[in-house]
Amino acid sequence: MRNRGVLTIISGFSGVGKGTLVKALLDKYDNYALSVSATTRMPRPGETDGINYFFIRKEEFEEKIQNGAFLEYARYVDNYYGTPREYVEQQLEAGKDVLLEIEIQGARQIKKLLPEAFTIFIMPPDAVTLKERLVGRNTETMEVIEARLCRASEEAEGIEWYDSVLVNDNLEKSVEALHGLIQAAHCDTFRNKDFIKDIRKGVKAFSEGE
Amino acid sequence: MRNRGVLTIISGFSGVGKGTLVKALLDKYDNYALSVSATTRMPRPGETDGINYFFIRKEEFEEKIQNGAFLEYARYVDNYYGTPREYVEQQLEAGKDVLLEIEIQGARQIKKLLPEAFTIFIMPPDAVTLKERLVGRNTETMEVIEARLCRASEEAEGIEWYDSVLVNDNLEKSVEALHGLIQAAHCDTFRNKDFIKDIRKGVKAFSEGE
Repeated sequence: MRNRGVLTIISGFSGVGKGTLVKALLDKYDNYALSVSATTRMPRPGETDGINYFFIRKEEFEEKIQNGAFLEYARYVDNYYGTPREYVEQQLEAGKDVLLEIEIQGARQIKKLLPEAFTIFIMPPDAVTLKERLVGRNTETMEVIEARLCRASEEAEGIEWYDSVLVNDNLEKSVEALHGLIQAAHCDTFRNKDFIKDIRKGVKAFSEGE
Repeated sequence: MRNRGVLTIISGFSGVGKGTLVKALLDKYDNYALSVSATTRMPRPGETDGINYFFIRKEEFEEKIQNGAFLEYARYVDNYYGTPREYVEQQLEAGKDVLLEIEIQGARQIKKLLPEAFTIFIMPPDAVTLKERLVGRNTETMEVIEARLCRASEEAEGIEWYDSVLVNDNLEKSVEALHGLIQAAHCDTFRNKDFIKDIRKGVKAFSEGE
């Protein structure tokens, strides 16, 4: 089997606990690396360069776009957000499974460049639970809540595009299941073409009397 | 998530240890059921009806073929071999993951009837190990060994057709990996269409103010 890591794209409804799940996976297992996005927006209080984001200037970001340095990027209002390609490639080559938390638009861009990427959509156990998570903090205006529900409705449209769905109902169990999904992805036939070819070549040589 | 079991088709090179792996999986976990084939050949010493095979008469087998009672069947020389459909369906409905050890010709027949079937090809760590397993018993004639190597060469042709490949190098590790693959298959998006539709319907209803 090959040693290259699997780039794992994790999407899911807002409020479904993707970030917590990814963090718990990174804490528990050594074989993962987290892809850190670059952005041109200003750091918020508590955010650290290289941890939460790589904070870079707009001119630098646009130069990187020209140089193909992003696996995907998008512009929201006045700011760019993107996934630096080099770090992801380095980690994959080193055998690390790279985790990337991103929305479907970015996920589609990446899958075009790296068809071997494995895509997971994190689900709530049911719609009522999702609504409770979106509404339940009780600190938001009706407009904010309505916007969240509307966004969730949009997010729900793309689920079938993903390779796998994972229900996040219990953090400990879901972390194990997420780990299991990514390790299983290593065994997908289309990610093992070279290994299969090697075995076939060897077997053929023996059967021809070598 | 749905509760229906996943029909798992296990193929692999002769001598790669498929049977041992399947038995160990059945011994270790409760959520599996083994599909038992029907055949018209005579029981060999030590074989038990309903355990190794369902031994049935030729007329009965041919009647069952007419009635669509087999997921797949084949005739080798003078004997029929087939996978009874009813038992598999019952177990899947009961939520059991059904294991079926079968060659690619049968696997293809089943996949046409049950596109949700999950297919795994068991691999040796490398070609030399496979040769040693095929040759190494040191109790066979050259003709038998050559026939085995030739068959392995044929078996190697179909590997890419399978969903996943699994290397059987260490029984304990491989059983865990096999279990992981089958549990991960439960999360494949195309096996969760109804669940995804339900969530989407619920989310849409909320966002429209219900």
